[in-house]
Formats: sequence, structure tokens, C-alpha cells
Amino acid sequence: MGPGPSNVHPRVLKALSQPLIGHLDPLFLELMEEIQGLLRYAFRTANRLTIPISATGSAGMEACLVNLLEPGDVVVIGANGAFGNRMLEIARRCRAHPIAVEAPWGNIVEPSAILAAVAAQPRVKAVCLVHAETSTGAWQPTEEVGAALAPTDTLFIVDAVTSLAGVPLEVDAWSIDACYSGTQKCLSCPPGLSPLTFSDKAVAALRARREPVQSWYLDLTMIEKYWGNERAYHHTAPISMNYALAEALRLVREEGLEARWRRHMRHHEALHAGLTAIGLHLAAQEGHRLPMLNSVSIPAGIDDVDVRNALLQEYDLEIGGGLGPLKGKVWRIGLMGESSTPANVLLVLTALERALRERGLAVDPGAAVSAAAAALDNQ
Amino acid sequence: MGPGPSNVHPRVLKALSQPLIGHLDPLFLELMEEIQGLLRYAFRTANRLTIPISATGSAGMEACLVNLLEPGDVVVIGANGAFGNRMLEIARRCRAHPIAVEAPWGNIVEPSAILAAVAAQPRVKAVCLVHAETSTGAWQPTEEVGAALAPTDTLFIVDAVTSLAGVPLEVDAWSIDACYSGTQKCLSCPPGLSPLTFSDKAVAALRARREPVQSWYLDLTMIEKYWGNERAYHHTAPISMNYALAEALRLVREEGLEARWRRHMRHHEALHAGLTAIGLHLAAQEGHRLPMLNSVSIPAGIDDVDVRNALLQEYDLEIGGGLGPLKGKVWRIGLMGESSTPANVLLVLTALERALRERGLAVDPGAAVSAAAAALDNQ
Repeated sequence: MGPGPSNVHPRVLKALSQPLIGHLDPLFLELMEEIQGLLRYAFRTANRLTIPISATGSAGMEACLVNLLEPGDVVVIGANGAFGNRMLEIARRCRAHPIAVEAPWGNIVEPSAILAAVAAQPRVKAVCLVHAETSTGAWQPTEEVGAALAPTDTLFIVDAVTSLAGVPLEVDAWSIDACYSGTQKCLSCPPGLSPLTFSDKAVAALRARREPVQSWYLDLTMIEKYWGNERAYHHTAPISMNYALAEALRLVREEGLEARWRRHMRHHEALHAGLTAIGLHLAAQEGHRLPMLNSVSIPAGIDDVDVRNALLQEYDLEIGGGLGPLKGKVWRIGLMGESSTPANVLLVLTALERALRERGLAVDPGAAVSAAAAALDNQ
Repeated sequence: MGPGPSNVHPRVLKALSQPLIGHLDPLFLELMEEIQGLLRYAFRTANRLTIPISATGSAGMEACLVNLLEPGDVVVIGANGAFGNRMLEIARRCRAHPIAVEAPWGNIVEPSAILAAVAAQPRVKAVCLVHAETSTGAWQPTEEVGAALAPTDTLFIVDAVTSLAGVPLEVDAWSIDACYSGTQKCLSCPPGLSPLTFSDKAVAALRARREPVQSWYLDLTMIEKYWGNERAYHHTAPISMNYALAEALRLVREEGLEARWRRHMRHHEALHAGLTAIGLHLAAQEGHRLPMLNSVSIPAGIDDVDVRNALLQEYDLEIGGGLGPLKGKVWRIGLMGESSTPANVLLVLTALERALRERGLAVDPGAAVSAAAAALDNQ
């Protein structure tokens, strides 16, 4: 129940353990087609260029930026947590000129501030937002920015590492041009691949590049020929991880995206009710809290690592610590994919209740789980 | 039996299907230590910086080059196949100045030609050789070049994607400064990770960089802090793939490296005897033929794809086609890791024998398998 990897369904574990076949085997090519179709379903897009990058979510971020940015390009980036900051860093390594639109960690970046930063520049190549800031639990509004950029030349790049299949994400309807995710969050597949989708506008920008993509491994002009009709060899696809991703995506489709979004919200609300009952507060900005990543303010006098170690040792339960300015100040409780269950909500509340009581806080035994159970009942 | 992925041992498949834990979980940190120790064993090195990169072998190549090359650096690269050419391409994308020392596909690059190219330049940052050219089957001598470069400032980078755990490779004894591999060849683990090792000389070059590594995902100055004592979060490690790699490496150690090298050679010799008995020739330069990747010249009048399709349909057997100038001219038969067995040697010979006979070649039934069986007997 940390910030990922989430638990994995037994069917996905079983898929992982199937015998290997070649990356150009007709059966594997069929599986690739299926994965692309299922990713389009999950991203809510008709984009042809919709594929898993053969590395983890951070490589998906790098793939979007190195393919779309060129030296000297101006790029506006929402910076309100670790992953927005990472985008700034990667943009600098592309020799682009990133402009940070900052907000305190835990808050969203106001869409109006983003659009003002765009308007202040003669030409902006791209705007980047983190839909679900895993380092803080902030749920970034993206629709308004997409709508404003759609009629312009500016590309809209969205980090959906933690949001995909956990909260509504509409790549086509929100005019997102490049979107990437990770497999180990709400898709509940092991880490190792990064789903990515490029709109026609993004593909046109890719084709119009003046110089080659600086990363050979992440160069989509070549990767799209392996995933497209050419089937041209680029690198050896991670076969087993693709088996797993296909099965994880089949599970998403069987549940249905909307049902999955509702499930994530339901368990978040139950967790929130339980936390509130024992005086714990969510740290992210009210009205913009992610359901699958709950950052909880650590009460005064309670030691972060001490409690996390106790949970791990006594309950075999992992929750995450804070990053950057939130280190030691928040816990991060994941309710992602297969891990988003009533049992997990009740378990983490029970464990926290006991840990806080044992460390001298006035916490009524059972208060948290009672409140959570009531919230689950009312849904 | 193509150029990889090779078959995977059931113990490795079972390891893949273990439940997920966090990438900072104490148990996972222990596994990381074990993997590093086993990789040092396989690479024959004491290098502290010995880790799996979280992507396939091609990313290991890119990791070596982007971390060690800076704009303007001169780098001498042996170019006698697809993977040497790929190094040239990546070096250009690092804005380095690559100097190609070419040889015909299938041949080695003469060490004297490499050293002459180095001597002709005032300063060479690195020399790159492909130890096992998977596109041709050529087995590149590397020891002499390593010995010549050891007392100089020039770094020695070796691609061991297909050679690691299949033929002798001595990172320390041969003064190799940066070496990378893939998991899906002679390690017989699924594709998805790239074992990599850097000598102290390479680490010193990394620390002396004038500007940041152009790839954030492959930046070893950060990755080494996750794999080192700091355990600083960089990206989420591919948990399941690391389970698999640990188990695959345990199998390598149980067999013993030297025994594994001998096994690969024994089955190569049996295959060679069988091929010779039906008039087929190995395409790589005599005296420099890899045991785990056998490129076979396609006889006149025989269609490459037609035969490969027949093998796949009739025997469920994959062999590889040629790349680049060898397309349509060679088949590539892999005998890697778990796939290097007497049964596979006999199977591919039986299948080829029949396919050639059915296509009008005068091939005695049983000639190939008899010769191979005799060769196995004599060993």
C-alpha cells in the first residue's frame, strides 16, 4: 500500500510465467496488436501510436520529452512535486528552455497560471502537467488546459503514471497530445513497461524534427516501425512483461474503466472517513485529492520511519514516506488497482490506529475502522 | 533457437510469478545485493558499480555511451555488424565524433586495425568493441586491445550482450572499463534488464564529466545511489524481472561459468558437424565463430523465409534470419543458455535436413543428426 508497485492479480502472475517466444513470432505480434487495442481503451484514445515503452514509467516521461523537444524549444511545466521537477530536469537535458509554473507541494497548479505562462511567450512548443502527482497526492485539473491548447501549435503532454485506470483520463476528449503511464500503479501489473500514446499532432511534431532524437533506445521514429506494420526490429521487446501487461489490461476491461474509477473513489472515501475519525488529515489540497494516492500528515511527535517500520514488521504492510520537502511530514498510502480493496482500507487503519495509540496519541480503539466500515456501508 | 530470447528454466519462470514487494522493501534490497554479487561473478569483476539497467540490452549500450561520452569526444568503434553500427549511431547522438574501423559482416575487426586507429588520433576517449556480434556470429578478440589501452586514459567499452555466460569474458583481467549485456541470451532470463559493470577508471570518467548525462533514465550518477548504500529513489525497479534475474544467475553459478562455456562449445561443435554433413557452411570467419550464435549460409535456390516458416509451423521451432547485408543470405541458429542442449541440436538439424530435401537438395536422410550424434559421443 505504498506509492507502487501495487498488488498484482494471480492471473497476471500466471501470465508472467508462460514460456518465452520470439519478439517477431506471429503469436507475439498478435499479442502486440491486442495490447495496443487495450491500451487505446484504457487511455480513451484512437491514437495509432499507442504502445508500451520497454522500460518503467520514468522512461515514458523521458520518451515524451526527448521525442517532442529540441534544443531551444520553450516548454511550460507545472512544478508542484517530484515528478513535475523531474520533467524540468529532463527538459534541461534536452537543451530545451523549461519554464516552471510552481505551486506548493500538495497543491495543484492553477490552469489559469499555466495558460498565463503560455501567453507570455512568443512560442511554446509544449505544456507539461502531472495528472496525478504521486509525491503529494494532488489531482491536477487538465481538461481546461487541453481545450485551450487544442487549436494552437502547442503540444499538451500529460503524466498519467498514477492516474491511468484509477481516475477519469480522456486522452482524446481532453486534447492530450502525448501521455504516458506506468504499469505498476492502477494497472496492477509489475513495473517494467510504460504505456504511451501520441496524437497525430504529436506525431507530426516528431516527423518535423530538425535533428535525431537524442535517445536511440526511446526513439519513437524507430519504435513505431516495430509496433506498426513494418515490424522492423529495433530492440528485443520484454516478452514476459508484455504477457503480464496484456493480462492486466484484460482485467481492466473486464471490470470496466468506469467501474474501476468508482471503486478507487469508494475506497478512498472510506479511508478518508477512517483517518478523520482518529484525527489524521489528508495533506493534499482539498477538492483535488487523488483517490489512489493518499498523503497523510504525520501528527506532531510521531516519527515517520518508526511507524512505517512497525507496520512492515507487525502487519507485513508497506506504506510510503514523503519525498523532498514532504520527507518526514507525510505518509503516502496507495490504494491502487488490485490493492484498492475494503480489506486493505481496514487493515491500514487498524495498523495506524494501534501504532499511534502505542506512541501515546489519544485514539479510540476501533474508531477508524468503524468510520470506514460505515462509509463503505453507505456507498 | 533464434538470436534470443532463449528458453527460460522453469525455476526462473516460477521466480517471475512471485508476489510483488516494494522497491525499497528490506527484502528487495537484500535481493539487489545478491544480484550484484552474482553479476560480479558472471562478469569476472570486482567492480563496485555492477548492476542491471532497468531496460533491455540496447539500453545497456546506450547507458555506457551516454554516461562516458561527451560532445566532441573521439571514440573508435569496431564496425562489422548491426551492433557495432548501432554504437556508431548512439555515439553520434551523444554529439561525440565516432571513428569506425570497418570489417566485412561476418569477419572480426583486427585488433591491430583498432590500435592503429587509436594511435592516429591525438586523444581517444573510448574504444568500443562488440564481443559477440549477434548479427553475424563473429567472435571478436578483445584481450589484446584491453591490454594496450589499460595504461592509457582511453576507456575500453565492450558489448557482451550475447557473450556473457556463453564464452569466456574476463572484465577485470582484460581491463574492460565498461561492459553491458542482455538477460535473454546466455543468461536465459526473459528480456527486460541489461547487466552493466563500470571499472574505477570508468567511474572516474563519469565523475569528471563537464555536463549532465543527456539521459535522465540512464544517468548512472543517480542510479548508483539507488544500488549503493544511499538507496536513494531514482525510478521504480522492475521487481519481477529482478526476481527472475536473480534466479537465472543462481543457475549460472550452480552450473559454474567454465562448465557453461564448455557446454556452449560442445553443442556448437555438434551442430557444426551436422551442418557440414549436409553441405551447409557457417558464415562467420573461420577461427572466430561464436558457439551460441551460428550463422549459416543459405544454399543457392533456397528461400530464407519459406524455410523459417516451415520450421516454425512443422516443428514449433524458431531460427533467425539475417540482418542488413546478410538478409536472405544467412540463418542465425541460437544455442544460448537453456537452449544449448543436445536435443535442440538434433531437432534443428532434423528440421533443416527435411526442409532442404523437400526443396530439392540432395541431402541424405539422417546424415546431419548422425554426424552431430557422433560429435556428441566423441566429447
